[in-house]
Amino acid sequence: MKQLSERARASFGQPIGELMARALGNPELISLAAGFADQSTLPTNLIQQVFDGVFADEPTARRALQYGTTAGDPLLRQLLIERLLSVDPGLSAADHVTPDQVVVTAGSNEFLFLLADALLDPGDIVLCGSPTYLVMLGILENLQAVAWGVNTDENGIRSDDLHQVLDLLQRQGRIDRVKAIYVVSYFDNPGGISMSLERRQELLDVARAWSARIGRTIHIIEDVAYRQLRYEGEDVPSIRSLDQSGQQVVYVDTFSKCLSPGLRVGWGLLPPPLVEPIINLKGNLNFGSPHLNQMILQRFLRDQLDSQHVPTIRQAYREKLEALETAAEELLAPVPGVHWHKPTGGLYIWLGLSPSIDTGPQGSLFDHAIEEGMIYVPGEFAFPNQGEPRCRNFMRLSFAVESPQRIRQGVEALSRAISRTLDEYRAQV
Amino acid sequence: MKQLSERARASFGQPIGELMARALGNPELISLAAGFADQSTLPTNLIQQVFDGVFADEPTARRALQYGTTAGDPLLRQLLIERLLSVDPGLSAADHVTPDQVVVTAGSNEFLFLLADALLDPGDIVLCGSPTYLVMLGILENLQAVAWGVNTDENGIRSDDLHQVLDLLQRQGRIDRVKAIYVVSYFDNPGGISMSLERRQELLDVARAWSARIGRTIHIIEDVAYRQLRYEGEDVPSIRSLDQSGQQVVYVDTFSKCLSPGLRVGWGLLPPPLVEPIINLKGNLNFGSPHLNQMILQRFLRDQLDSQHVPTIRQAYREKLEALETAAEELLAPVPGVHWHKPTGGLYIWLGLSPSIDTGPQGSLFDHAIEEGMIYVPGEFAFPNQGEPRCRNFMRLSFAVESPQRIRQGVEALSRAISRTLDEYRAQV
Repeated sequence: MKQLSERARASFGQPIGELMARALGNPELISLAAGFADQSTLPTNLIQQVFDGVFADEPTARRALQYGTTAGDPLLRQLLIERLLSVDPGLSAADHVTPDQVVVTAGSNEFLFLLADALLDPGDIVLCGSPTYLVMLGILENLQAVAWGVNTDENGIRSDDLHQVLDLLQRQGRIDRVKAIYVVSYFDNPGGISMSLERRQELLDVARAWSARIGRTIHIIEDVAYRQLRYEGEDVPSIRSLDQSGQQVVYVDTFSKCLSPGLRVGWGLLPPPLVEPIINLKGNLNFGSPHLNQMILQRFLRDQLDSQHVPTIRQAYREKLEALETAAEELLAPVPGVHWHKPTGGLYIWLGLSPSIDTGPQGSLFDHAIEEGMIYVPGEFAFPNQGEPRCRNFMRLSFAVESPQRIRQGVEALSRAISRTLDEYRAQV
Repeated sequence: MKQLSERARASFGQPIGELMARALGNPELISLAAGFADQSTLPTNLIQQVFDGVFADEPTARRALQYGTTAGDPLLRQLLIERLLSVDPGLSAADHVTPDQVVVTAGSNEFLFLLADALLDPGDIVLCGSPTYLVMLGILENLQAVAWGVNTDENGIRSDDLHQVLDLLQRQGRIDRVKAIYVVSYFDNPGGISMSLERRQELLDVARAWSARIGRTIHIIEDVAYRQLRYEGEDVPSIRSLDQSGQQVVYVDTFSKCLSPGLRVGWGLLPPPLVEPIINLKGNLNFGSPHLNQMILQRFLRDQLDSQHVPTIRQAYREKLEALETAAEELLAPVPGVHWHKPTGGLYIWLGLSPSIDTGPQGSLFDHAIEEGMIYVPGEFAFPNQGEPRCRNFMRLSFAVESPQRIRQGVEALSRAISRTLDEYRAQV
């Protein structure tokens, strides 16, 4: 349609948006699709308490209802830095970890959009895991950039494969188009994979070596959306904390998963040369995210309420992961070809089926699942267009929104849907 | 810097952002620059009351803390439509005035950005008043689009001049690049001009005639940010209400001026073909603005609290406009060359000085004004790059943030600064 800009024509609806709408439209449907927050863990009392605190003081309340600054509330940025330094003790302010490097956004999605917009021209390449976060794929498509999938195993994106891809792109004369490497470093969406420390260091080394080789920084975009959602083991240092130069890694965080998606506050820590460009772009987009929400979060962090809240949600999600695991072990593991890697955090299980089964909307399994009363995210949406081949026999199962009981019912429904699909296949052979 | 995308390189800081920072950095400075809301009118009690209402019911509170949908809360969209139909009784749902045509954003700035992004490729042209809203100029510059200034008088953008510009662009073979006409139809920023009904109809007629001629819609972007801020006379129908086809006009509104900038909710009513593209772009940007803020606004409108609040802020701003007018009449009107058009609403007076005086940061008046204790927005920032020539002898004076007493002191400081500048000029001659 010639009314629209090239970018609008390149921008398709987020497939997950339609799925969410479908799930919301039928409340009976058991959603193992949506990455919403668990409704029962949303901290209504804590938020009410914090809101009352902000509004108890008239000048503070007025400040909350006034414009803030484009980069975000200064005290909030200070508290975000203190929080980061406390979880990554290897870091210090000397590593360009200061409030001046922080930009606060309405969700980390806005931050990822601004960052991609600042770095990428049409045709530029971002290397990412295969599979990877499907919303990031939408952002890149929107910007007419290329998402290039790199082989990923149970420790995260493989550095030897990454190296090979960079080599290939150099031979093809396209190395100048490689601008960034995107990873969800903790409990990946959709894979549930958390990168090992060794793999983090290797990734940083590869990015540095190639940046030096081409004379331009290839940024690592480290998305830590699920870092707080660990259900066993110890936290691993961030990739950012290994990058003491502060030049290589952009650290992108959100409070949508560990606090409230409706509050919608995200933020990122930028290498110094990217701060001004991002603030300029944000100045044109909205000259600052909602100040009220920032003031609420600021007080939440100041009063250290996250140390109260995070254990609660960990416990709730741990139980739901158990429910999904138990039901899947019992009902899905016996099905030939079914496999998954057990996650220790996050919100997702990445379930592989026999290669003959197409999990996408064009296959029969997806419809059967809905008929049986559940919905999942077809895995194909999470594969980049370039690089590693797209697989059609995976699905993302989320244990985020449903109760343990309904999670089990959802797996039962899925198991029936798989049986029906396999029966059809057998009938055709 | 070759790290950055072309768009990032085209994106400069909003000049007003630096001015705001300068004003915020020195609380003694009297700011007749910022378009912030009056601090004393921010409805802290009403917002507390509404927040308590949302949080009194646990399921509602949880819904507020959860994700919403990309287009925005359905009930809020319904209420926005009802509100529009009540102020524009000429409209009806049959004119494509339905919740499905509404997209809710975090401030109208985000809406304007998404709309511009959906319509404009680099080099495309948007016609606008000369002067016009400087943030819109930043958005267009960011997208590498061309803002083309059209002659404006006390009734708004001149339709005969608009016609001439379109004629000129056709002769130049550039008519295909004209995608939209942008107007702030009520109490313009910076001019303080409200378009007359006759001029609204003429604008619509010109846009329709040229759309028919070139076989593609030239959209009118009607920004109504200040519609509620009328201090005398009766409301005028919106341009959107004259467009019963619903195809020509995009109606863009915000609650930042009439309620609270910190709540940061804006919205727009789109012609049917633009709804999906805008939602797709927004899906990539943030898949929905903060739901908490939408739930607060939803209840605010449902309980008709705007009918309580709007008269309060009108009264406060009316008094401050009077204070600015009275001081300007007394202290500035006697200065040779000083002139302005008295506004009947909005937040600004657009003050012209003798053509010999440069009001910009490169002239001496701006520094003198700061030395004397006040700050204003240099008018040059509000002129498009193309079309009508940029004037350097104007300034935007805002009566939004300061008290009547400080407004008067600000005008006194400005008067001293003008005297010093004129003395310098005389000394140089």
